[in-house]
Amino acid sequence: MAGAMKGRIVCFGEMLLRLSSPAGQLLLQTPQLDTCIGGAEANVAVSLARFGQPAAMASTLPDNALGWGARDQLRMHGVAVDGLRFEPGRMGLYFLTPGAVMRPSEIVYDRAGSAFALADPAAYDWAELLDGAAWLHVSGVSPAVGEQAAQAVLDAMTAARACGVQVSYDGNYRASLWAARGSDGAGVLRTLLAQADLAFAGPRDIALLLGEPGLAQQGCAEEAIAACFAAFPQLQRLAATQRAQDSVDQHTLSATLHTRQGALQAGSYAMHGIVDRIGGGDAFAAGMLHGLHSGWSDSEALEFALAAAVAKHSIAGDFNLASVAQVEAVRGGRLDVQR
Amino acid sequence: MAGAMKGRIVCFGEMLLRLSSPAGQLLLQTPQLDTCIGGAEANVAVSLARFGQPAAMASTLPDNALGWGARDQLRMHGVAVDGLRFEPGRMGLYFLTPGAVMRPSEIVYDRAGSAFALADPAAYDWAELLDGAAWLHVSGVSPAVGEQAAQAVLDAMTAARACGVQVSYDGNYRASLWAARGSDGAGVLRTLLAQADLAFAGPRDIALLLGEPGLAQQGCAEEAIAACFAAFPQLQRLAATQRAQDSVDQHTLSATLHTRQGALQAGSYAMHGIVDRIGGGDAFAAGMLHGLHSGWSDSEALEFALAAAVAKHSIAGDFNLASVAQVEAVRGGRLDVQR
Amino acid sequence: MAGAMKGRIVCFGEMLLRLSSPAGQLLLQTPQLDTCIGGAEANVAVSLARFGQPAAMASTLPDNALGWGARDQLRMHGVAVDGLRFEPGRMGLYFLTPGAVMRPSEIVYDRAGSAFALADPAAYDWAELLDGAAWLHVSGVSPAVGEQAAQAVLDAMTAARACGVQVSYDGNYRASLWAARGSDGAGVLRTLLAQADLAFAGPRDIALLLGEPGLAQQGCAEEAIAACFAAFPQLQRLAATQRAQDSVDQHTLSATLHTRQGALQAGSYAMHGIVDRIGGGDAFAAGMLHGLHSGWSDSEALEFALAAAVAKHSIAGDFNLASVAQVEAVRGGRLDVQR
Amino acid sequence: MAGAMKGRIVCFGEMLLRLSSPAGQLLLQTPQLDTCIGGAEANVAVSLARFGQPAAMASTLPDNALGWGARDQLRMHGVAVDGLRFEPGRMGLYFLTPGAVMRPSEIVYDRAGSAFALADPAAYDWAELLDGAAWLHVSGVSPAVGEQAAQAVLDAMTAARACGVQVSYDGNYRASLWAARGSDGAGVLRTLLAQADLAFAGPRDIALLLGEPGLAQQGCAEEAIAACFAAFPQLQRLAATQRAQDSVDQHTLSATLHTRQGALQAGSYAMHGIVDRIGGGDAFAAGMLHGLHSGWSDSEALEFALAAAVAKHSIAGDFNLASVAQVEAVRGGRLDVQR
Amino acid sequence: MAGAMKGRIVCFGEMLLRLSSPAGQLLLQTPQLDTCIGGAEANVAVSLARFGQPAAMASTLPDNALGWGARDQLRMHGVAVDGLRFEPGRMGLYFLTPGAVMRPSEIVYDRAGSAFALADPAAYDWAELLDGAAWLHVSGVSPAVGEQAAQAVLDAMTAARACGVQVSYDGNYRASLWAARGSDGAGVLRTLLAQADLAFAGPRDIALLLGEPGLAQQGCAEEAIAACFAAFPQLQRLAATQRAQDSVDQHTLSATLHTRQGALQAGSYAMHGIVDRIGGGDAFAAGMLHGLHSGWSDSEALEFALAAAVAKHSIAGDFNLASVAQVEAVRGGRLDVQR
Amino acid sequence: MAGAMKGRIVCFGEMLLRLSSPAGQLLLQTPQLDTCIGGAEANVAVSLARFGQPAAMASTLPDNALGWGARDQLRMHGVAVDGLRFEPGRMGLYFLTPGAVMRPSEIVYDRAGSAFALADPAAYDWAELLDGAAWLHVSGVSPAVGEQAAQAVLDAMTAARACGVQVSYDGNYRASLWAARGSDGAGVLRTLLAQADLAFAGPRDIALLLGEPGLAQQGCAEEAIAACFAAFPQLQRLAATQRAQDSVDQHTLSATLHTRQGALQAGSYAMHGIVDRIGGGDAFAAGMLHGLHSGWSDSEALEFALAAAVAKHSIAGDFNLASVAQVEAVRGGRLDVQR
Repeated sequence: MAGAMKGRIVCFGEMLLRLSSPAGQLLLQTPQLDTCIGGAEANVAVSLARFGQPAAMASTLPDNALGWGARDQLRMHGVAVDGLRFEPGRMGLYFLTPGAVMRPSEIVYDRAGSAFALADPAAYDWAELLDGAAWLHVSGVSPAVGEQAAQAVLDAMTAARACGVQVSYDGNYRASLWAARGSDGAGVLRTLLAQADLAFAGPRDIALLLGEPGLAQQGCAEEAIAACFAAFPQLQRLAATQRAQDSVDQHTLSATLHTRQGALQAGSYAMHGIVDRIGGGDAFAAGMLHGLHSGWSDSEALEFALAAAVAKHSIAGDFNLASVAQVEAVRGGRLDVQR
Repeated sequence: MAGAMKGRIVCFGEMLLRLSSPAGQLLLQTPQLDTCIGGAEANVAVSLARFGQPAAMASTLPDNALGWGARDQLRMHGVAVDGLRFEPGRMGLYFLTPGAVMRPSEIVYDRAGSAFALADPAAYDWAELLDGAAWLHVSGVSPAVGEQAAQAVLDAMTAARACGVQVSYDGNYRASLWAARGSDGAGVLRTLLAQADLAFAGPRDIALLLGEPGLAQQGCAEEAIAACFAAFPQLQRLAATQRAQDSVDQHTLSATLHTRQGALQAGSYAMHGIVDRIGGGDAFAAGMLHGLHSGWSDSEALEFALAAAVAKHSIAGDFNLASVAQVEAVRGGRLDVQR
Repeated sequence: MAGAMKGRIVCFGEMLLRLSSPAGQLLLQTPQLDTCIGGAEANVAVSLARFGQPAAMASTLPDNALGWGARDQLRMHGVAVDGLRFEPGRMGLYFLTPGAVMRPSEIVYDRAGSAFALADPAAYDWAELLDGAAWLHVSGVSPAVGEQAAQAVLDAMTAARACGVQVSYDGNYRASLWAARGSDGAGVLRTLLAQADLAFAGPRDIALLLGEPGLAQQGCAEEAIAACFAAFPQLQRLAATQRAQDSVDQHTLSATLHTRQGALQAGSYAMHGIVDRIGGGDAFAAGMLHGLHSGWSDSEALEFALAAAVAKHSIAGDFNLASVAQVEAVRGGRLDVQR
Repeated sequence: MAGAMKGRIVCFGEMLLRLSSPAGQLLLQTPQLDTCIGGAEANVAVSLARFGQPAAMASTLPDNALGWGARDQLRMHGVAVDGLRFEPGRMGLYFLTPGAVMRPSEIVYDRAGSAFALADPAAYDWAELLDGAAWLHVSGVSPAVGEQAAQAVLDAMTAARACGVQVSYDGNYRASLWAARGSDGAGVLRTLLAQADLAFAGPRDIALLLGEPGLAQQGCAEEAIAACFAAFPQLQRLAATQRAQDSVDQHTLSATLHTRQGALQAGSYAMHGIVDRIGGGDAFAAGMLHGLHSGWSDSEALEFALAAAVAKHSIAGDFNLASVAQVEAVRGGRLDVQR
Repeated sequence: MAGAMKGRIVCFGEMLLRLSSPAGQLLLQTPQLDTCIGGAEANVAVSLARFGQPAAMASTLPDNALGWGARDQLRMHGVAVDGLRFEPGRMGLYFLTPGAVMRPSEIVYDRAGSAFALADPAAYDWAELLDGAAWLHVSGVSPAVGEQAAQAVLDAMTAARACGVQVSYDGNYRASLWAARGSDGAGVLRTLLAQADLAFAGPRDIALLLGEPGLAQQGCAEEAIAACFAAFPQLQRLAATQRAQDSVDQHTLSATLHTRQGALQAGSYAMHGIVDRIGGGDAFAAGMLHGLHSGWSDSEALEFALAAAVAKHSIAGDFNLASVAQVEAVRGGRLDVQR
Repeated sequence: MAGAMKGRIVCFGEMLLRLSSPAGQLLLQTPQLDTCIGGAEANVAVSLARFGQPAAMASTLPDNALGWGARDQLRMHGVAVDGLRFEPGRMGLYFLTPGAVMRPSEIVYDRAGSAFALADPAAYDWAELLDGAAWLHVSGVSPAVGEQAAQAVLDAMTAARACGVQVSYDGNYRASLWAARGSDGAGVLRTLLAQADLAFAGPRDIALLLGEPGLAQQGCAEEAIAACFAAFPQLQRLAATQRAQDSVDQHTLSATLHTRQGALQAGSYAMHGIVDRIGGGDAFAAGMLHGLHSGWSDSEALEFALAAAVAKHSIAGDFNLASVAQVEAVRGGRLDVQR
């Protein structure tokens, strides 16, 4: 691990409380909800910490039992929480009806007006938050939450660039959130992607950002990627998963990593009996960051990242709690009971 | 929806309390039972109400906490309960051991002597119960429960015919119940089917009713259907699902609708990870009635009905709680998380 | 059942308390553990008792609430418990993280220093324990637990041989337990297998025992079996399951039975949505003993044993609680709800 | 029941989803929340319906799965839901940490910006909503939620007065909600109380409304009541419970009813092992309305109302689900198992 | 334990499946029921077995999964089950809504037409069933179930008398069952009590049986007991508990034992936080039989029996699962954690 | 808080996994165990962290999923975990049967041979572990676990003394553990207490240590305390709780603090409906350390500590998760719902 980096990986974004009905039940079909803490960027932070990386979270949480509980979940998994701010306000929530067979999962967002969305961007001290950081990881969910959050994420990326911290950016396009804001977000998201060294985005994201719908079409993936590298000179790596769904709990997952030098394709996994698909993309991002931060080759990082994403599908909740050893077991195809 | 009908859809039959062991466990393996309310006709009523139709239930329930609870479940889902009668007696029960892998689900019926089975047929005021109704829906389970119930269902159908209410009839053959009565029920069931405008029955049901076992053989489906239309001049539509089972939780489901004009075949669905197969046929019947009552074409109604049946397999309990939007999502093959 | 034997089937080995996290969760992810009693030999005893056989268990348990609870579980299922000894000490435990999708199940053993492992071999009165027995069933787990247990199992087998009780032996190789003892166990296990009339072992077990690694290679199965019969003249039957795993909850299972006269192959089963894979091999052994003890043909016994193993995969816990009727339903491919 | 009234009892106010941690646990101590639907006025409506009264609910709910679920709970218990409006927006929530021993229960409100709070007062058609009503029941929670809701409740009361519908008003003072609005609400609440025929309020409420803090002091209860009747000439009855708390689950409850003619005091109940104290006051209000609507004497109504409040403490959730017979059992002191 | 008797204690009566809603919830308030096996006489058998006595059960159970499950529960606790008969039919059930605070528990019986109630009395071979027995224990519930069962219990008692087996009889008066039979049962119960050496009955039972209502009045207890000994010359001991209830979960329990020589009174226990009151009387009966069967003095037996009854109140389900050591801890007033 | 100290409070001792049956159930009565992490010293650390103190834990844990889970629980609550060592071995466990009514809770320890018990005392680097510490907290449980642990705790105390870290010592006498070691531990415990500035011990502990049984007698408390101060010149404060038990879930708790200057007595609390009594003493110790570390007066510290102990009784699990605000609410007698 000669090439391993030393600094922290700082994740910035909103944390959410998920409230989901039990498997096979619609929301409120029975009077019980399972809860977990999540959020695209927190998911990455937790997975990195479980891989042994020095992960840290920056966010604004409500100063109440829900916000404290969110902090506690990060701490439990070993994520540094000194970058959390607590303000009066409410916790962002989402209600999940888990799907089954051919009935898709459904999310009712209830995150408007959250402490994170309303937080003053000037309240974040990026010099301090990024002190000692090797990477900053953000996502396209934050700007979708509101203008304050959009500004904050841009400030963070700018500060990172300024002090030599590498920037990782996950597109995570949320059409319903942007619709609620009366915009498709392309302009803002383009500004953000322009700051990234590493981006997680597929042809559809690229097509949207560049305003070229044709790039989203079947067969134009390579063209879209080339256009993306052309449009964003800062960008060094572009990673994405490809998912095919036979039913709600049976998918096939593969992944690609493009650099300016070429393309890598990881072998695909046929997943049966999926437990929880949410956070799969975040697990992939964390796996990639783990590999890069460990100084692994692109190919090693990609294979690990895909196996990490697969492992996530076997674990309830937003977080990928799998250890490196568990990801390696997936990658090694060791399926029988480990005694 | 120019052709949509206005009247209520009245469902008549026994309501049951289901008591089932948790998934993967035999009955009483652990000291807990999950309960739900069901019954072939109530399942249809609830699904119709969830689709926004004016559904009503007619039945006799025990005048105790179990009967009241059954009524409350109907009310919860928007089914009109003014047609329920409460009498001293017991609630019909069934104990379910859910199957898994290659071990089939098992039902222990405990419905003998229920308030419904013992109810005096003369106690139902069909003129009032069917007032303002567009459809009456009944099934072949009721006559299997006992002579009183058989008479009641025949009275209901006769009254419906007399006042221009269309009659829907689901065969729902229950061999074990008929065996307990010392008959195969063919005679009674033939009388009932003769009253139906719409029937849910497959070649095996037809073969039994017509006393022509040969019609149940592989390859004789079309012949059986022709014989059925010939034997029952009142009958306009004959619908059925076709189910192939790879394992207890992996089936393929398709459906057909025959009229005197011709045959329609809906595309099939491969279902993985089935949550609850019980009530799938009732969900199909409700879907068909929803389509017909909405003035849809036969083809539209059939496709919707099959998707409704598929949606049911993803929901725990007897009732298909899926909304029209959820059925449409199944039909549209939208499998990924709906945010 | 003219050829059915009358005597008891005595199973000897350690009983364990399994503590497992809920499905889809890692150990301690939530603060709840599901418990069950198990152990390779107890699993066989319980399955035999559920099949109606006169099964008895011999073991040493701690004289506390856990040991008493283990006894109670045996009693519940109809296993005779007069062969249980209670000593001060601790219960053997194992913590299970159930796998899912591509993440394998993981076991943390916590059985060192158990009352069984430390029990004085001389404390077992084999003449009394085997009185009236037709079969003794033991496994290769016991010697892996420690020298005292290894001696006890050898004593049992020797006593059985001496008084005409047939001996059934399941290899059940546990590499991690042997590793903890600083040996591969081949010598001890060879001694045990030499006492067996019926053995459950595959090419890998044989290769290890005979010190011929080549026999474990793909395509050498027949050679391995021949070598085994050659090395162990007492041995009459050699049975094994063959398992192929597509994912953690989707396996294909088949089985073979070799005698000195020839080989039998049972048809394979594709299992989807596996509930609990642990104890599948023990269910197979119980099925085989049930068939042989019932005087069935080898072929009948093998087919029943394989269906029993398949049935086990649909039931939570270590024990195969399936009845003969439920195993026959699996064998008959009757997948739909049994009403 | 010669004096029983015929009309509906219409309750108007916000419905809330309660999310509570399990007994003996702090919020998010374990990842599960129990849910129920509540809200001061909905609690009254449900209790009245369970007593057999024609209760109806008027409110605005979010047009999503949470709002639909709230409606379904009302329907389940027999409350008429034709007065519910569905608008885009969010559901009002509250998170409950149930107390124990000496640790009090804690509520985190998350109801700001709910569909109810933001609903346009002009959208309610009070002439239609109150058509056929005998009583309107509202509470002081609604104006605390925001100006729109305050206007709506005033409109409702004014409309009721105008068309001869009697008005019931429960003070239900919520200091934290008013504090968030930067007011103590006394002015608004005085306007509301001025419309009421029947009010539920104690000396502290009266003191606040009249701006005379001295009336809240020990020993000034009678003086406060006299002042209240003097200030509000419309008011005919003033009811209140008196609660003494030994510990979180051990209270003594009594109740008074004052009219312009005099005072009634109901006998007190010592309650041990309280299950759920929330909604106790609403259960009292419902009991009083049940008695008055049934034409009972004030004394009968008061005794029933107190027993209803006591019964509520034995039932989980916001709603008092007790039947008249169950309330009578409490009143009759029949404590042993009713077989 | 010089005086300890050797023979079995045979209990005869109906076994029931209890289905109860969770604590603090009404029946079907949530879709889950907790189950346990019970029945007055089975409760005695299980408690005796847990005390180490050779207890056996005689009964008729339905030959289905529920009946087998009932048998398994007896076996688990060490009760001999060779006296169980399995017949086609249904299991007797009862639905329990557990009470709280001042709301009493409610039972909905659903035991009419059970396999036990319909069993032919001639089918029991009492000579065999009582072979080697020291005691027969029956109760007044059986005759309340129907004429067949009444005959069976009388046959059992007669047979016991004939072969020198002592007879224990628990009055267990169930007014609702007798009401359903259109009788108060006094005549039948008198016949039964006439066969008893040991009876569990209080003044109210005695008053009913003797047709002297005055004996049930406050202050006539001694008179009632004297009348009972006078009326039933066979009777040697008359035991009863006295229960005072402050609330549903707070009772005071004491007990008396009368012989022809005099009266014994056991000290009373104030019980707070009662978990499950059902089966308390059966636990008392089992405690008394344990003491007498162990050759203890009447005083010792009575004190133990009362402590056993108290212990039962701390354990969920019908059965008193407490060990002798746990009963002794209650008796010794050792309340703190036993480490 | 002028007098507040800055340094960490380092707690050293064994961490345990508690496995307990659900309330009202005996161990293994149903197949589920609730788990939590505990241990006398870890309980203190967690409570301190929840109070906002810089708490740190030093211990040895097994290097497996159980040990990692124990670490994660500490982290979750904000305890520093850099002082944890991970070694091969097993986790200390204890099985808890929670008591009820008059049946006491029972603990089955399964902690022999744990990684902590077997850890080499020389492996702890006390200079580093105590660097920056203000207090070291240990207890008398550690030496009871074995000689290695006894040496380690003595080393820790000696090192603390040497570098000016104050020492807190909780007697926590465990008779069963000492009995298993064949000693009453008085000698070892005396050595430890000699190192303490602050001790938690009552007359019985003192009597044992000083070998003067008379001091444990009723009425000799003051004499015992005087003897203790005389025997241990280093000791400055001696604190203890006094508990009276009416039933398993109803206790009265008070507390005393003795210094060389005099005695303080905190007011007592009558606790009804106790949720979980375990860890009450540790919560008291944490409360006292919080007060002293905050520079409060002895009187303030004692009152807070007692209220903290009371708060613990309302929270499931070993840890007192109450915040300072929640403890203050207890102290303030604010019992009603905090909205």
